[in-house]
Amino acid sequence: MSNTAAIVGGGVIGGGWAARFLLNGWNVKVFDPDPESERKMGEVLANARIGLPMLYDCALPDEGRLTRHKSISDAVRESAWVQESVTERLELKHKVISEIQAENPNVAIGSSTSGFKPSELQDNAVNPGRILVAHPFNPVYLLPLVELVPSRSTSDHAIETAKRILSSIGLSPLLVRREIDAHIADRFLEAVWREALWLVKDGIATTREIDDAIRYGFGIRWAQMGLFETYRVAGGEMGMRHFMSQFGPALKWPWTKLMDVPELTDELVNMIAEQSDRQSGHVSIRELERKRDRNLIAIMRALKQQGTAAGRLVKEHQKRMRPQLASAKPIISTRRTIPCDWTDINGHMNEGRYGQIFSDAAEEIMAFIGADDDYIAAGMSYFTVETTIRYINETHAGEMVEVHTLVTQGEGKKLRCFHELKRMENNDLLATCDQMMLHVSLTTRRTCTPADHVREKVEELAALHAEDIS
Amino acid sequence: MSNTAAIVGGGVIGGGWAARFLLNGWNVKVFDPDPESERKMGEVLANARIGLPMLYDCALPDEGRLTRHKSISDAVRESAWVQESVTERLELKHKVISEIQAENPNVAIGSSTSGFKPSELQDNAVNPGRILVAHPFNPVYLLPLVELVPSRSTSDHAIETAKRILSSIGLSPLLVRREIDAHIADRFLEAVWREALWLVKDGIATTREIDDAIRYGFGIRWAQMGLFETYRVAGGEMGMRHFMSQFGPALKWPWTKLMDVPELTDELVNMIAEQSDRQSGHVSIRELERKRDRNLIAIMRALKQQGTAAGRLVKEHQKRMRPQLASAKPIISTRRTIPCDWTDINGHMNEGRYGQIFSDAAEEIMAFIGADDDYIAAGMSYFTVETTIRYINETHAGEMVEVHTLVTQGEGKKLRCFHELKRMENNDLLATCDQMMLHVSLTTRRTCTPADHVREKVEELAALHAEDIS
Repeated sequence: MSNTAAIVGGGVIGGGWAARFLLNGWNVKVFDPDPESERKMGEVLANARIGLPMLYDCALPDEGRLTRHKSISDAVRESAWVQESVTERLELKHKVISEIQAENPNVAIGSSTSGFKPSELQDNAVNPGRILVAHPFNPVYLLPLVELVPSRSTSDHAIETAKRILSSIGLSPLLVRREIDAHIADRFLEAVWREALWLVKDGIATTREIDDAIRYGFGIRWAQMGLFETYRVAGGEMGMRHFMSQFGPALKWPWTKLMDVPELTDELVNMIAEQSDRQSGHVSIRELERKRDRNLIAIMRALKQQGTAAGRLVKEHQKRMRPQLASAKPIISTRRTIPCDWTDINGHMNEGRYGQIFSDAAEEIMAFIGADDDYIAAGMSYFTVETTIRYINETHAGEMVEVHTLVTQGEGKKLRCFHELKRMENNDLLATCDQMMLHVSLTTRRTCTPADHVREKVEELAALHAEDIS
Repeated sequence: MSNTAAIVGGGVIGGGWAARFLLNGWNVKVFDPDPESERKMGEVLANARIGLPMLYDCALPDEGRLTRHKSISDAVRESAWVQESVTERLELKHKVISEIQAENPNVAIGSSTSGFKPSELQDNAVNPGRILVAHPFNPVYLLPLVELVPSRSTSDHAIETAKRILSSIGLSPLLVRREIDAHIADRFLEAVWREALWLVKDGIATTREIDDAIRYGFGIRWAQMGLFETYRVAGGEMGMRHFMSQFGPALKWPWTKLMDVPELTDELVNMIAEQSDRQSGHVSIRELERKRDRNLIAIMRALKQQGTAAGRLVKEHQKRMRPQLASAKPIISTRRTIPCDWTDINGHMNEGRYGQIFSDAAEEIMAFIGADDDYIAAGMSYFTVETTIRYINETHAGEMVEVHTLVTQGEGKKLRCFHELKRMENNDLLATCDQMMLHVSLTTRRTCTPADHVREKVEELAALHAEDIS
């Protein structure tokens, strides 16, 4: 049986939550009386269906079922999690929480609020212990950070439930030690936003120049190490104390206007809006969203390949979703979506990526026959010595594909596979690969005989797949 | 004849400048009396030699010559650019600038200062018009941003020289419209740093938690779009004005302690140093540097594939470095470094990437025979229908490789190539690829006859390569 989450408030943030739950196999029940909500959520969901599957090198679980409900009590009934993302008005949040707890007093409630502390949300609640802040970042279906802020009244059980459920849908809960206005990340965003407004107002830089100052410099640094580790590296062998003693004094210099807030006059708002139009006005918001998502996916996939930062989180989530292969004829060795970083100048999947899909398929087969990560760590593996790939049909980013694999030879050091890459939508054959691998010692880098359990499994598959090969 | 840059002050920043100039083919003359300078610069240069070539899919120019000099006048003589990166003390900078201009009064001088304005540097200078701030970001050899800050006295000619020279070594000069303390980016860093110190001091978050709050959330967003474009997307169809009216009021909320600066007491410094040790103390600074560089390279390569943000800059620089192929037997169709995002679970280059190298080699051949970007944009191209790759030797990230290509068949719609991938260091044969391509119409996605100039060039190469094939 699938789990069910209730989404109360279905705008861009609520829609992002709904998408993340649905695409991770949860059923989602939505309450939002706004007549525009269905359309808005639909657009977020459309982006998420394109984007999220591209993060992973295996298929996501079957999508859950989305239903819309006319009352909060209908939506939250029998839900294992409620995510509240209504407008930032405290009395509205209180009303919503009281309706949720009237129906389902023990369900854990996460609030997407950036403006309120959990203790404020808990005021007068029937069951304050089940309420905490779960503050996500847009786009919620891609970015892994969620700030989890309990108050002193939030129960440990609710905190543990939140951690478990949110981790299971690929988020990385950051438990904030003490409640504080704006939690953690938004304090930085607020600081940067204030400074940026002054720079524009004072004519030092335009919106585009400020964006460039961020994305060509410290923005790239922060995508991977954050602030302190970046400075630790900058401090060099002398360490963090040295860094602070060197740069600490500058803190006192009058570098900043932060202590002051610029008045948001019509003039300043117009100036920023006009600069922003010049910068990005030629691209629609929809296109900008898709571009943003492709960029985020490409960055997170790059970090995944390095096994670090947000990419490490994606990798761990992927590991939990990786399917077990079954002894069949053929074996379904891969099922995945073609990601947006695999296309080439012709607009279709680069020819090297066919090789990578077949190589990944072979890795799954290796794991299945016992030549898995532990086996490789212990010093043996299979190396590919020759592949012949026939390119039959084009494939494009976003398409779901499967690889069907037969073991066509399995004796001694030899493992030969024949792979067929198919588009799942219409079963079109996209490419085939005849792949010869040899078993090697990773110490000598020369061929050697596999361990018995591996050799036996290879022979068993070769025998199974040899029968009646057409 | 190579260009020559003088580097005055050779620490981490000066070393980064030296590396970027050298690896882009400039000769570099260094002045730094610190006995530790040679070692420090050597370490930066070692990292740069590993990292920078991995950013590009073609070889960098031949490295320039590095010389060290005993006086400033020796170093700056006949240099086309002087980069000053001495300690942040104004009287020292004045002394250095006066020595530079005593020898070479007309050379453009860029200062790496973050703490001083150009007008301050110009005080009492012989030729103030040639002085401006050129403020880079660490690691200088990888990050493209350089803030160019002229004063009113800086000449247009010096500004244009700075733009031209710094762009030519792969930097992206951001011209700051008016001089201001800390220029642009450091104002943001200062704001975030202050807020971060408070969060640690108040026990809201540890250094690791703050880093996670950045790199799992807005850090990834900022690596690609910066601040304003990110908010423009968040504002949705209603636009930037709507976003500001919605979030503007929060500016006035007491979310921040920015107006106040925490005292850097021993206690606070210790707290941060200890948290940082717990977070990253198990990894040496050298390892952290390499990890940072691999991450930055992987992110920038991912953005390059998307053709956007810092990746667009890398792509443009690469385009300028792309060599012209020559009609030879064989044709050297590719020369490049294996990047750090191309290795697999076995630690060597993933088998799919062999396919990509050969595919890239074929693209170079295509461009050479006239099937270039314009030809493709006009609706025709070659598609690969079959490849056979033999994997002969392993290759690893950081190795320089070459592809030698023969056109083994070139008639009608057919273009067949035989590629050999070689390690340049020892001429080891790493892999071969027999690749059959067919000429196609991108409209019908079916085969068709090439344009005459393409067909003729293909036939010419096939004839050249057919002679005496062994």
